[in-house]
Amino acid sequence: MNRLHPDSLIEQQKDEILQGLIEFVRFPSISTDPEHRPPLRACADWLRDRLTSIGIEAELRETGGHPAVVGRSEMHADRPTLLIYGHYDVQPVDPLALWNTDPFEPVLRDGRLFGRGASDNKGQIWAHIQAARLFHMTGTPLPANLVFLIEGEEEIGSPHLTPVVEALAKEYQFTSVIVSDTGMPGPGQPALTNGLRGLAYFEVVLTGANTDLHSGIFGGAVPNPAQALTHMLAACKDPQTGRILIPGFYDDIEPVSEKERVSIAGVPFSDKAFQEQLGLAALEGEEGFSSLERRWIRPTFDINGLTSGFQGEGAKTVIPAEARCKVSMRLVPGQDPDGVEILFRSFLESIRPPSIQMEISVIHGARPYHLDIDHPLVEAGLQALKAGFGVEPVIIREGGSVPIVQTFKQVLGTETLLLGLGLPDDRCHAPNEKFELDNLWAGIRTSVDLLYRLGQG
Amino acid sequence: MNRLHPDSLIEQQKDEILQGLIEFVRFPSISTDPEHRPPLRACADWLRDRLTSIGIEAELRETGGHPAVVGRSEMHADRPTLLIYGHYDVQPVDPLALWNTDPFEPVLRDGRLFGRGASDNKGQIWAHIQAARLFHMTGTPLPANLVFLIEGEEEIGSPHLTPVVEALAKEYQFTSVIVSDTGMPGPGQPALTNGLRGLAYFEVVLTGANTDLHSGIFGGAVPNPAQALTHMLAACKDPQTGRILIPGFYDDIEPVSEKERVSIAGVPFSDKAFQEQLGLAALEGEEGFSSLERRWIRPTFDINGLTSGFQGEGAKTVIPAEARCKVSMRLVPGQDPDGVEILFRSFLESIRPPSIQMEISVIHGARPYHLDIDHPLVEAGLQALKAGFGVEPVIIREGGSVPIVQTFKQVLGTETLLLGLGLPDDRCHAPNEKFELDNLWAGIRTSVDLLYRLGQG
Repeated sequence: MNRLHPDSLIEQQKDEILQGLIEFVRFPSISTDPEHRPPLRACADWLRDRLTSIGIEAELRETGGHPAVVGRSEMHADRPTLLIYGHYDVQPVDPLALWNTDPFEPVLRDGRLFGRGASDNKGQIWAHIQAARLFHMTGTPLPANLVFLIEGEEEIGSPHLTPVVEALAKEYQFTSVIVSDTGMPGPGQPALTNGLRGLAYFEVVLTGANTDLHSGIFGGAVPNPAQALTHMLAACKDPQTGRILIPGFYDDIEPVSEKERVSIAGVPFSDKAFQEQLGLAALEGEEGFSSLERRWIRPTFDINGLTSGFQGEGAKTVIPAEARCKVSMRLVPGQDPDGVEILFRSFLESIRPPSIQMEISVIHGARPYHLDIDHPLVEAGLQALKAGFGVEPVIIREGGSVPIVQTFKQVLGTETLLLGLGLPDDRCHAPNEKFELDNLWAGIRTSVDLLYRLGQG
Repeated sequence: MNRLHPDSLIEQQKDEILQGLIEFVRFPSISTDPEHRPPLRACADWLRDRLTSIGIEAELRETGGHPAVVGRSEMHADRPTLLIYGHYDVQPVDPLALWNTDPFEPVLRDGRLFGRGASDNKGQIWAHIQAARLFHMTGTPLPANLVFLIEGEEEIGSPHLTPVVEALAKEYQFTSVIVSDTGMPGPGQPALTNGLRGLAYFEVVLTGANTDLHSGIFGGAVPNPAQALTHMLAACKDPQTGRILIPGFYDDIEPVSEKERVSIAGVPFSDKAFQEQLGLAALEGEEGFSSLERRWIRPTFDINGLTSGFQGEGAKTVIPAEARCKVSMRLVPGQDPDGVEILFRSFLESIRPPSIQMEISVIHGARPYHLDIDHPLVEAGLQALKAGFGVEPVIIREGGSVPIVQTFKQVLGTETLLLGLGLPDDRCHAPNEKFELDNLWAGIRTSVDLLYRLGQG
């Protein structure tokens, strides 16, 4: 059987591969915004047609939300079946004013593609799609049966995906799942991610009087929900030690093995470079842990948004009727979003002033994930990365969440191999997101190599 | 000399008076918003023409900002000269969604006029303009020379008015100033205001990283300016005692005489009704003081606005690069905005985390004001209110600021008589602002009576 050697093919196909990715990024597929339904669907249609054109028979699966794109290669009973997961939806673009170029008019510059979703996740899933395309265009047999699942609701917590995965579980017997939706520690340093943090994301709304009040006429004698919000949020975290003060928050955390802490300590990382890259006067975090440990194996408490009262130019002397915040906690193995919700609600309730009314909504939740470093998938992934990048990879964890990985484990019974192609400075979720083309080419090579390692022969 | 008896005249002129006020409120004269320059000037032109048509020779005085309208009656050397001050600019209207009717399409309902500026300050200054009009239409000699000063920048701290007042000081010798821009304790209870709180209004901007960051990838190892903001603002006030914790904040406050505290205790006021009117689960304020004292003779610390990170629907997992707040303190005699600024800056600087950069801007400042209750103006004002409302008035203070009153004292050397026509539920600065027509009629009667008391004869 012919074996596919991707290097010269990629070289020859570069323009074609890039043009496709630019078309992909051009769709403003912002899943959190109801007004973007039409471009999301257009993006899904486009993906379906692209997959079909490279021998991956694809269709849209309706979910009640944004559709999922599901595609399958020719199925052969003697080959293992791999699920390749990605998402075509993207984060919102605000603050739009901080973008140097239109987030949905991708720009190529200095070996990078700039645009919302270029790295998270369109560029990364594109690497796997292009690997499949190289097999197809050269008529090389695929060493494994491939099922692509590319959803449209990852950035809003994949609320409708479980039934789609359940249906796939009935149709196929998967041996493993491949996801590129994580990151590398730095340029040219490939990495396999064996752990993800979970997430518990809330909105808290505090209400005082039934209307905004004049701060002169009423000030001093009425509660101020914005002030109450600062007191309640400040009480959640010790600014000196970086410890989260919600009672019970740390109780169920599983200890991290010494072997893993040693492995983490061996990952090249410079606090100084990290700090400089972010333009920070100082770093900050939980006492007793390194920066990588703070990002990978420790939970967080972060305010993601604050809004109350007058936010325009100049002065408006109001006591706001309402104050809102978006607040989220990253979770580590042993914690789960439901348990954290109970602790968070009961703590806030215990410190809520009697003059203030409170409403807490769960916006998003995800369980943490951990793949044992002695699992055979880990070795296959490391070898494929080495083949793709030409460099020895490291094992890392990731601070972010890919909630669906938990679903795969529970519904399909399979572990997930996380081979991230993003860089720390890709500005995912921020203005001027970009994707390194070097990682696209290396990603395609890695994908091809991995199919051989996990496939038959 | 004929004396003007306004009762039947007002009855006969009601429609005309109201139509004029409706025209006045219709101008969207929001001074804080640069986009509203044209309607501010149109409003000033309209006022000038209205004054001129009732025998008050008026003109626009350019200030570098929004113009001031200055009008003068015929001047007679044997009559005292009174300055009647008001403002034609209004507060912003946001949140617009909470208005039941268009803020600039005034609606008459149940004896009230609804619209932005109906009470603050268009309706109140209208009472004095209409008093002058009754003298003019009946050919009754004015007992005093009148100078109207109606400015367009009160809601933004009157930044350009001092030169206008300085010019007036050279043109006229004023015996006193009359201002209706304060409030009454309740319907049918007229009041003279002998004290105003000052104001120190700031914007604080905290900055962390040079861009918004993904809360999963970075969370735990980087500072969060929104979190720092909550810690710093929470540190400014003790939520239990209601005491402001900025060191030195209370040091220079002048003690309030026992006579005034007794007078305040005699002002009819119900905590229960106050709480119910505002829809509050509980009242809140500084320990050891009544609600009225908290609003009149004690300083405050209030957050007027918070803004940071993601504020839209759904979830966005960012660590904001920036967090902003608008925060203001109401000041009482002995305090001044410059001194408070020094204390506030140095306190925030002392608690600022090293990882966070901070910028503090002064948005607005005003000194407090106090008129001794034994001053002869007080007696004249009380008598005029009694004549206008037919009810015994009370002496109150006001929690809000009318910064220009300090300027009058310093530049003109005269005290100011504050005869407020607003009610606590007028929703000044909030959605659905309204003005009680009963207070308009009583205000006209009061103004006429006061001119005789302060005038010649």
